[in-house]
Amino acid sequence: MTTPLTDFIGGSGGPWEVVRMTTLAGAGLAPVSHLEPRPTSLRPAEAALGQCWALKGVISNLRYAEQAERAALAAVQKPLGRPAATCAALVPLRKSAAWWALAQDERRAIFEDASHHTQTGIRYLPAIARQLYHCRDLGEPFDFLTWFEFAPAHAAAFDELLHALRQTTEWAYVEREIDIRLVRA
Amino acid sequence: MTTPLTDFIGGSGGPWEVVRMTTLAGAGLAPVSHLEPRPTSLRPAEAALGQCWALKGVISNLRYAEQAERAALAAVQKPLGRPAATCAALVPLRKSAAWWALAQDERRAIFEDASHHTQTGIRYLPAIARQLYHCRDLGEPFDFLTWFEFAPAHAAAFDELLHALRQTTEWAYVEREIDIRLVRA
Repeated sequence: MTTPLTDFIGGSGGPWEVVRMTTLAGAGLAPVSHLEPRPTSLRPAEAALGQCWALKGVISNLRYAEQAERAALAAVQKPLGRPAATCAALVPLRKSAAWWALAQDERRAIFEDASHHTQTGIRYLPAIARQLYHCRDLGEPFDFLTWFEFAPAHAAAFDELLHALRQTTEWAYVEREIDIRLVRA
Repeated sequence: MTTPLTDFIGGSGGPWEVVRMTTLAGAGLAPVSHLEPRPTSLRPAEAALGQCWALKGVISNLRYAEQAERAALAAVQKPLGRPAATCAALVPLRKSAAWWALAQDERRAIFEDASHHTQTGIRYLPAIARQLYHCRDLGEPFDFLTWFEFAPAHAAAFDELLHALRQTTEWAYVEREIDIRLVRA
């Protein structure tokens, strides 16, 4: 799960069972029953039995977090793969061309000063573990894939986190978003 | 040349003839006589007659430039492909793991506040046209490929620009750099 380059393969098999898929904006994805994160290369995902779609992403450097924020996150966040974290979510998301045309300071101002993205997220640590994958530069249909893991007891907190982020100015630039909820199969 | 995803193919043919290749840091590249920029996909570059190496990069969003800097650049920069710009350079460059582990504000502080990267570059516009390609997230051996075009009369100014950048704090993080000079074949 922490391999830099990963395919998230939706199909009829895999270690995570899909509980529900909700399309928040833009086109949906074909419904699948299972999801498998798989280390990959930049070649197209290999065909697998029952595979329906594959979303590719790469772990990259920080784009907005500043030194103090990085330290605050590092002090409290937990790694993926905790045994009690039997719930997960994959949120593929694409932002608009208007977002990507902004300069770095303009995007930072919307991301944190106006929308408090990191400040909000940190309130849900360590309960919610999280890994961001970038995919815009890979020519993928989404810009980001965010993977979350949490215990069933924190499912309501996770809903609250996503609800808070979706009310922000930053989210006005989101033109495609799908919320895929999972449990360990 | 402005296709987002591009292969720079070094070999025995192509529209640009190699004048010299200088390794500034780290391992060099095999000597070639010609270079061909070619629009590509994320699949491995297709084999071509006389091909020796292929470096892949993608045009992406701004990472450090702020609104005022972007406006200042846009007001003066010229596009690639000017008939008088018969000289070119390709500079593949990789930065260290220490650079990539820095937070956004730390990298910005080194890039501009300490090293004046944009401020220096803008002094050489519009003579030097430039396009940055990102490749770190593509799993490539370099992090960036920068392509420059200029008229023969501006070759000395171009040398001066590279010399100035290579004296900066930012360049202390450069662990591999090759300077490939070209003329139209």
